Amino acid sequence: MSEERLRSIEELGEFGLIAHLTKDLEKRQESTLKGVGDDAAVIDFGSQCQVVTTDMLVEGIHFDLMYTPLKHLGYKSVIVNISDVYAMNAVPRQITVSVAISGKFSVEALEQFYEGVKMACQQYGVDMVGGDTSASLTGLMISVTALGTAPKKEIVYRSGAKVNNLACVTGDLGAAYMGLQVLEREKKVFEEDSKTQPMLGDYEYVVGRFLKPEVRVETLLKLRELEVLPTSMIDISDGLSSELLHICKESDCGVVIYQEKLPISMEVQLAAAEFRLEPLIPVLNGGEDYELLFTVPLSAHDKVKSIPGISIIGNITEHKGTAIMMTEQGQAIALQAQGWQAYSR
Amino acid sequence: MSEERLRSIEELGEFGLIAHLTKDLEKRQESTLKGVGDDAAVIDFGSQCQVVTTDMLVEGIHFDLMYTPLKHLGYKSVIVNISDVYAMNAVPRQITVSVAISGKFSVEALEQFYEGVKMACQQYGVDMVGGDTSASLTGLMISVTALGTAPKKEIVYRSGAKVNNLACVTGDLGAAYMGLQVLEREKKVFEEDSKTQPMLGDYEYVVGRFLKPEVRVETLLKLRELEVLPTSMIDISDGLSSELLHICKESDCGVVIYQEKLPISMEVQLAAAEFRLEPLIPVLNGGEDYELLFTVPLSAHDKVKSIPGISIIGNITEHKGTAIMMTEQGQAIALQAQGWQAYSR
Repeated sequence: MSEERLRSIEELGEFGLIAHLTKDLEKRQESTLKGVGDDAAVIDFGSQCQVVTTDMLVEGIHFDLMYTPLKHLGYKSVIVNISDVYAMNAVPRQITVSVAISGKFSVEALEQFYEGVKMACQQYGVDMVGGDTSASLTGLMISVTALGTAPKKEIVYRSGAKVNNLACVTGDLGAAYMGLQVLEREKKVFEEDSKTQPMLGDYEYVVGRFLKPEVRVETLLKLRELEVLPTSMIDISDGLSSELLHICKESDCGVVIYQEKLPISMEVQLAAAEFRLEPLIPVLNGGEDYELLFTVPLSAHDKVKSIPGISIIGNITEHKGTAIMMTEQGQAIALQAQGWQAYSR
Repeated sequence: MSEERLRSIEELGEFGLIAHLTKDLEKRQESTLKGVGDDAAVIDFGSQCQVVTTDMLVEGIHFDLMYTPLKHLGYKSVIVNISDVYAMNAVPRQITVSVAISGKFSVEALEQFYEGVKMACQQYGVDMVGGDTSASLTGLMISVTALGTAPKKEIVYRSGAKVNNLACVTGDLGAAYMGLQVLEREKKVFEEDSKTQPMLGDYEYVVGRFLKPEVRVETLLKLRELEVLPTSMIDISDGLSSELLHICKESDCGVVIYQEKLPISMEVQLAAAEFRLEPLIPVLNGGEDYELLFTVPLSAHDKVKSIPGISIIGNITEHKGTAIMMTEQGQAIALQAQGWQAYSR
């Protein structure tokens, strides 16, 4: 019985579950411009809008304290939330941070966590304005809400992509996923022989991308400076394939991307080789890079090209709901939210 | 070592811990009018302000699923948060609801929880605009953020009480605490003999106050109608004594209340008698009633008197930080956040 129940939540999956539970939500407040279904909700305050987003981080699910320093965890808890604010093309202003902690944590441990929170607040100019602390019977649970603002006409939703728009990503992809693999391997080695010191030297970049992600604010500023307003945008927290499919679904379109255009760092290629992994796997399906995926009109091509740290990876098509990757060999592969399969042609 | 660490968080206590962890928070955003330290944070949007508050509910700490129906839990999760919005004299507009759930919960169980959330949203005219769902290794954890608005000049802080102001409370006190005692007793009986059916008939009122609290919106509307703006306000979630001390601390004043003015329902008196409890204990220190404690200028006495469901329980004094209760026998008792002690006179 219990297994059957478990399966049914698993079958729905996270997105299915949210869709199921929120399917008959009514809108009562005029100020609610956008509710569930984007990186953040949007609330109307006249010419300004506020965006609101919230994310939970649960010990044993989202993080492993064996290899996650609490300071990094505090920092990352803020980043994953303000990343959603930036993905609406808004500027984060305030956050609230709630933690539930078991008795195993000391005041000093909590101080480290909040030091990380404060560092992220300083780095991104955000105020921590509230939160809650609670006991927990087991482990650590973190819930952050981030608030940001943007002029109403500058808010970018997932739903604005148009046929022939260019699909772009910031930075490079797959590094956080490879960082996680390295940390998991070191954890196993440590569990077998606790005298071994972790060897992370060669993997500093990928491990850093996992433990201390950043948001590509400079790219967003550059886009604003050149007056390029993305038609749609989303942050890459669940992997490129998954986010492309979100854009396709919300914008009622398709997308084709080109393998040779995908930004892969040398570090990801080397780590993938060592782990005997096809590098496309972390690039397409590795999450937590917190890069931005966005679309722009074709006319913005030259401007976007001129901005360092942006890769144009493909374009929006009229094939609703399908995200295709063209391999270097000219094969078309249908991208899926989890894993990917060869597409018959 | 671990016990020593545990003690140090316990020694600080929740309020001490929050004060400790947030002591050096910087303010970077001009729009942040009030951060940590009131029922909610306040953000400036010109003539309108937004208030933001967040609360966590953790299984085994804040609720026991043995006697808490999930629908009630969903409802209550919303109420405890919008209660903080109302306590700022603001109107709740939007909420986000995040849940972390273990595999033992079915989709149907989650549906019941969200049904309760939606009922509360409907009752109070609030939109659920976002949230997060996550797996959890153990138990259920809920994090709600509530957003509301008010004209800047109508926001009521904890810090505005002035000497000779009247201290008032809505409704009656101690019922939720007695409801919890009844439920805990029935749980024990059930654990000893699972064939016994719970006997809650005589305790419908107190159990209802615990499981399905409401906010005294009609009283707030009446105050507004009569143009009485409270000088300070707080919702009674941790018990009257604790909230009185918050007002004293933030307003840099003292307070005296009178035992015979405290609103106690017949149901609380009967339940207390049966549990051989001094009824003052739930009234002063029982939490979760979600009544409102507020202060008004002496000049508002007649208006406040005319509003049903408000008790004037005492007045603000110049004795900074001291909350005194005068008993019916004329004894002065110093109120403390937890428990209460005879005050030498």
